[in-house]
Amino acid sequence: MRYSCLAPGKRLRPVLCLAASVAVGGQIEDALDAGCAIEMVHCFSLIHDDLPALDDDDLRRGLPTCHVKYGEAIAILAGDALFSLAFHTMTGLTSPPERVVKAIRSLTRATGSDGLVAGEAMDLLSEGKPVELETLIAIHRMKTGALISASCEIGAILGGGSASQIEALREYGEQIGLAFQIADDLLNETSTPEQLGKAAGSDRERQKMTYPALYGLEGSRNAALRAAERGIECLQSVQDTGGILEALARFSVERLN
Amino acid sequence: MRYSCLAPGKRLRPVLCLAASVAVGGQIEDALDAGCAIEMVHCFSLIHDDLPALDDDDLRRGLPTCHVKYGEAIAILAGDALFSLAFHTMTGLTSPPERVVKAIRSLTRATGSDGLVAGEAMDLLSEGKPVELETLIAIHRMKTGALISASCEIGAILGGGSASQIEALREYGEQIGLAFQIADDLLNETSTPEQLGKAAGSDRERQKMTYPALYGLEGSRNAALRAAERGIECLQSVQDTGGILEALARFSVERLN
Repeated sequence: MRYSCLAPGKRLRPVLCLAASVAVGGQIEDALDAGCAIEMVHCFSLIHDDLPALDDDDLRRGLPTCHVKYGEAIAILAGDALFSLAFHTMTGLTSPPERVVKAIRSLTRATGSDGLVAGEAMDLLSEGKPVELETLIAIHRMKTGALISASCEIGAILGGGSASQIEALREYGEQIGLAFQIADDLLNETSTPEQLGKAAGSDRERQKMTYPALYGLEGSRNAALRAAERGIECLQSVQDTGGILEALARFSVERLN
Repeated sequence: MRYSCLAPGKRLRPVLCLAASVAVGGQIEDALDAGCAIEMVHCFSLIHDDLPALDDDDLRRGLPTCHVKYGEAIAILAGDALFSLAFHTMTGLTSPPERVVKAIRSLTRATGSDGLVAGEAMDLLSEGKPVELETLIAIHRMKTGALISASCEIGAILGGGSASQIEALREYGEQIGLAFQIADDLLNETSTPEQLGKAAGSDRERQKMTYPALYGLEGSRNAALRAAERGIECLQSVQDTGGILEALARFSVERLN
């Protein structure tokens, strides 16, 4: 659990969660434990996605994947225990209990059979098959968008945002999530394992349907930029102190790993 | 998810949850969704425990295990999604939010790295090795006792029980869990796959440390009966309407599958 969760990562989701809390007038502290819980959920999903029965990846965050290091059984259980610990951490939040329940509900929506687990399943089942753009967008939304979007929503809930602010930040997160995933597809195509800390070129090998496969590199980059811009437009009803949320939107596209 | 979760099972944990709610003056309805969530958690743990990398079992509840039926990747993901759906279901409870948070917290304590996932990990790591009685009890407590005990605790929380009633039912559940697991060890030794709906004799094959291996059949049966009696003694501060909790304590020992 420590090996995978504390490995170097961007911590994009926790940072979005904290920034969303601040953007609705809350404190960083209101969202700090939730940010940790979200990173645990993200890490659980990476450990399981990397397993031999799924993507069978050897490298993650520049290190051997959990099952390469500790064996398959322990990797499965470490993922399970991180998932449980994430919800345990959420129940320790000091926010009013109705907010806590709402935040946990958002996290469950993002992770289950309408969220990242479903996205991974659809992704697996569509390998090597011709896939429509709509399916690709649905996979991206569930596999990556849902948790990124929930990170923003949870921060806004815990920071005490109004219903419209929570919705605006959820929508911002959805656009950022799309931009982030298109950039991920591009990096898989154009980068090296050294830069990424994980496999590169693997989507093409597995005949995965990706944005570059559908729209080419230039078209994909434009689609990512447009999604980031749409995300930034959602920020009108909140206070983006220091322009952090805008910077994170741009970072989702411009990042190098 | 449906295939494994709706397969015929005893539903002991949900029934305990409902009975605990009633025993503290609550309604069955207060605990009904939580009972479903607990069964989803139980089922998630069975799917993952049965995987080739773990216990590699082919038969469960009289049917091919999830990975035999749908493949390993889908089995891993179905377990993950059931775990997520369990927490999602808990956040939909109509009880006061502070009770809901407390109930979710109890469920996370029972499942993670102090609960059933840890029990499974310890169980795996101790296969084929000489194990002390203390370790065996710790494995049993985490792998089986924790969720059975949490089922009672959660029912009592949602039914509006007092702190001492919640604690009494948690303790009752712990004793029932121990009785149940000793009976499980006995059945693995003395029963057939047809009766059990899952593998029999497998503990001995894998050189697992069990109660019968330590105390023999008669000694184990007495230990299970004593645990059930200790459980029944915990019921003095609650109203065991219809003697259901007492009957469930005896059933944990007397059951045939």
